[in-house]
Amino acid sequence: MSLEIVSQSRCFGGRQVTYRHQSQETGTPMRFAVFHPPQSERGKVPVVWFLAGLTCTEENFTVKAGAQRVAAELGLMLVAPDTSPRGEGVPDDPEGAYDFGLGAGFYLDATQAPWAANYRMRSYLERELPALIGAGLPADMGRQSIMGHSMGGHGALTMGLRNPERFKAISAFAPIVSPLNCPWGEKALSNYLGLDRAAWRAYDACALIRDGARAPELLVDQGEADPWLQSQLKPELLQAACAEAGVKLTLRRQPHYDHSYFFISSFIEDHLRWHAERL
Amino acid sequence: MSLEIVSQSRCFGGRQVTYRHQSQETGTPMRFAVFHPPQSERGKVPVVWFLAGLTCTEENFTVKAGAQRVAAELGLMLVAPDTSPRGEGVPDDPEGAYDFGLGAGFYLDATQAPWAANYRMRSYLERELPALIGAGLPADMGRQSIMGHSMGGHGALTMGLRNPERFKAISAFAPIVSPLNCPWGEKALSNYLGLDRAAWRAYDACALIRDGARAPELLVDQGEADPWLQSQLKPELLQAACAEAGVKLTLRRQPHYDHSYFFISSFIEDHLRWHAERL
Repeated sequence: MSLEIVSQSRCFGGRQVTYRHQSQETGTPMRFAVFHPPQSERGKVPVVWFLAGLTCTEENFTVKAGAQRVAAELGLMLVAPDTSPRGEGVPDDPEGAYDFGLGAGFYLDATQAPWAANYRMRSYLERELPALIGAGLPADMGRQSIMGHSMGGHGALTMGLRNPERFKAISAFAPIVSPLNCPWGEKALSNYLGLDRAAWRAYDACALIRDGARAPELLVDQGEADPWLQSQLKPELLQAACAEAGVKLTLRRQPHYDHSYFFISSFIEDHLRWHAERL
Repeated sequence: MSLEIVSQSRCFGGRQVTYRHQSQETGTPMRFAVFHPPQSERGKVPVVWFLAGLTCTEENFTVKAGAQRVAAELGLMLVAPDTSPRGEGVPDDPEGAYDFGLGAGFYLDATQAPWAANYRMRSYLERELPALIGAGLPADMGRQSIMGHSMGGHGALTMGLRNPERFKAISAFAPIVSPLNCPWGEKALSNYLGLDRAAWRAYDACALIRDGARAPELLVDQGEADPWLQSQLKPELLQAACAEAGVKLTLRRQPHYDHSYFFISSFIEDHLRWHAERL
């Protein structure tokens, strides 16, 4: 299984690379972006995963978040995967909606037709891609952490909570904290997983915590001018679940900030330094 | 003449705003992006202009360069204009090429049909837009500087050299230093300005310097892995013109860097600090 380099650019003394490979899990070619900090030329470095939101590819975080400067200073590899399978034969939302199908994989393994064949982002990110990266790149896979934005914040929280031994730090920007309790989640999970909501709980950060999953602590930034705050994101649900379970949550409500990468770029340095202290 | 706000986002404690207005010079609606640093809520702040390259709009620098963090620290307003007129009836390259017409205004006033009616980016940026910004935004128009990338590096150098009283600092990333001596310039200037090459000299940094234009100093970063370095950019021509004329040029050749915003983002902090010292 080989990694093909699609493009690479020097950046802050390191290298920003886009890779492509044939995925066994999704049955499609997949792309992902990696920032190799300068320190990785001399040895293995810790890995910070960033999962992006609805409509995004591996490119959005890479070009918009301004993360490379701090990652170069701290010696962190940044890995940004795509948000869904893509390509010939991959089924999409019948109406081409932005919140389901292509660009909206929700970081789960679908069980329902026609989605189950390709939409396997959970297994792709929990097994296939880390194995590839561990084998092919100068990554210290004993030191990993995860963060994400919106749908990718959901991905980071749920993947982190399900795999506490793998991820030493978990944080999120404006995450969907409970797909069981918002329209984006209702639509996606009912289609991907079917109507039995018990099957959704492995993909709901609040439900995972209620069902016993634990993380040492969580960091969440949420803009108060985010247009999805009340209808979709609902950080108060995570706050309640963490409070009940005794999980330490640092929830920072940022006045005036919205849902954009201007918000992410303003606080990415805080997150990367918080991760580096824990890696 | 009113400025319409198309979008705005909180960013590093300031505001990133996209404006739209009807331009008298181009005869079209024009967009531009402004970063308002937090300091501008308390009074007027200096203005740094950034002119973008071929194919770009006001958005590229705004979302990709990572400039807001440093501008917020230094209290600089960042203004990023579009690179050409756009819209119904604006003529474009007959074959839709990327290097002429839409997205490729070359920061000049065209004199040839059918371009002369709309392609007036020089007058737009030398007269109309600064007047609008001075009247409508908290900008200290006595403290302006200019920078740009590629075609926009050409724009920054030529506009700076023609207006030394206006711009207190001039710098560029991978600029086209001499449209008289490269294929991009040959194509664009022959179409916009006609075949009399004497008329091109006001739009050629090297020719301007040879013809007597002066700046206190120039800062240029150029990636050595830039695919356009030898065929289009030719920084050695600027080096020679500056040496002959006694203009101080700091030309930094950056090993391994290419022509992308990964290159710009790696050095934008240096440029902004260099500008701030001179503003």
